[in-house]
Amino acid sequence: MTAYVEEATDMYPTRASAGVHVELPRREPAVWGGDVPGPWSDDELEAYEQRGYATVEGLLSAAEVAADLAELHRLRSEPMLADDERAIRERDSDQVRSVFEVHRISDRLRALAHDPRLVDRARQILGTDVYIHQSRVNYKPGYGGNGFYWHSDFETWHSEDGMPAMRALSVSIALTDNHATNGPLMIMPGSHHGFVPCPGQTPDDHHRVSLRAQQVGTPGPALVRRLADRHGIDAITGPAGSATFFDSNCMHGSGDNITPYDRANVFIVYNSVKNTLVDPYGAPKPRPAHIASRDFTPVP
Amino acid sequence: MTAYVEEATDMYPTRASAGVHVELPRREPAVWGGDVPGPWSDDELEAYEQRGYATVEGLLSAAEVAADLAELHRLRSEPMLADDERAIRERDSDQVRSVFEVHRISDRLRALAHDPRLVDRARQILGTDVYIHQSRVNYKPGYGGNGFYWHSDFETWHSEDGMPAMRALSVSIALTDNHATNGPLMIMPGSHHGFVPCPGQTPDDHHRVSLRAQQVGTPGPALVRRLADRHGIDAITGPAGSATFFDSNCMHGSGDNITPYDRANVFIVYNSVKNTLVDPYGAPKPRPAHIASRDFTPVP
Repeated sequence: MTAYVEEATDMYPTRASAGVHVELPRREPAVWGGDVPGPWSDDELEAYEQRGYATVEGLLSAAEVAADLAELHRLRSEPMLADDERAIRERDSDQVRSVFEVHRISDRLRALAHDPRLVDRARQILGTDVYIHQSRVNYKPGYGGNGFYWHSDFETWHSEDGMPAMRALSVSIALTDNHATNGPLMIMPGSHHGFVPCPGQTPDDHHRVSLRAQQVGTPGPALVRRLADRHGIDAITGPAGSATFFDSNCMHGSGDNITPYDRANVFIVYNSVKNTLVDPYGAPKPRPAHIASRDFTPVP
Repeated sequence: MTAYVEEATDMYPTRASAGVHVELPRREPAVWGGDVPGPWSDDELEAYEQRGYATVEGLLSAAEVAADLAELHRLRSEPMLADDERAIRERDSDQVRSVFEVHRISDRLRALAHDPRLVDRARQILGTDVYIHQSRVNYKPGYGGNGFYWHSDFETWHSEDGMPAMRALSVSIALTDNHATNGPLMIMPGSHHGFVPCPGQTPDDHHRVSLRAQQVGTPGPALVRRLADRHGIDAITGPAGSATFFDSNCMHGSGDNITPYDRANVFIVYNSVKNTLVDPYGAPKPRPAHIASRDFTPVP
């Protein structure tokens, strides 16, 4: 493979041109612990360590959900974003699929990204202060919105953004009900314990296509099958206002959504301040800052 | 609209160029009854009349499922079908998505289509002898097999095949387990009570594209929303060997399948011998016989 970082320093080699077809062991915990207090109980932390994710139902009130959803609708038709690379469109239509860096675009969503109900939980799991690596809203519109094929976020953040270790997590905050039928998040519980290298070299400016339909950065079919057989597949369903916290290395994906019910959510990635970005481990240059922030200022 | 059959004789006008946006009442029962005996209980028939579908678990034994599935795998790589219009391929890949007219291609699947466990149930619901309007196998392969958008089969069979009335049913026989996550059949229960006209005129040779991705013959978003709000959406899950019988006019569809688990089934359409085809009600010419049979010989 083309080594962008000296190989000896890379615990998780991926994007090899010849392909790497074996799962590598994870070198780190999911729950880093330490002295950082927070709302999770010991049992909840233990379950997160084992399964790689945890859902908090009713984290947002109905009024908060309604106001956040109104903000999402406003952003979707925000004239400023019409020609902005932060707005990603569906591959089959011109509908907005995602908007990135919403914590810098929207006062309301910045407040959400700084909300102690989220940040305290992220700090407690990662064992340090955290900063925002990425934020976005996903619309997953009804009547045919596309899904995402299986992937580990860490595989991309490591190879394309230069994130050294698995010391980050995502939180997906549901602003609409998640049904089994409208393309919910699917996670293979426990899959975060192994690292699955992905075949194929990263093309230049891969993010311009990968956010619509991924070409590299997805595991081969044999490994998907082995992981699904071993771990099973959980569909994360539940009412609007729930928040699902999941490890950066969970194998996850989602199907499409032909129901008339949008599956809108806010997605925030917290990274430990001890895990800030270096040069990409498997790409010619880093992705832009609206996708992978290099402002490592801790959330206050 | 272009009337291919005198309008006065058409109870279910559709494919109007200007669009028709109101649901029309159904003129017929789902269960025709009469003196035809069969395995369904009165309660089961009543539920079928109300919901438009019924599932029989374990209709096939494990040994039958294994043998039928082997036959599906054999057909998928049958050299005779390599260039045959009866084999339909996925739109994003060259994988076989469906094979039509399998009751004429495969001895084993003809026997299944003639199996009294299926035919007796179809006769009892439709109240007469039945013939096979269509048969096919669907592979819905894992790792990204595509789904079908919402549609009523009757809307197509009426407009493109010339089926006069709603006196037909389909049976989908699961040869693999149907999970909530691998793109199961979704039905709006009770939706068969109304007829939803679809906008758009039928293009010439529409079946060449519609079996890969439908362009007309699907309801507009406002009606999909109204139907889903009123009826809800049932995902039909269960073990291999189950058979789901459903009315020709059920609004149904399915999502895509990113799991590694194929969702393979055999699909057989029985039509009443009192409901044989005439000229299409909304298309320039009938679809070919491998999709809509004009051999009205009753199943023995």
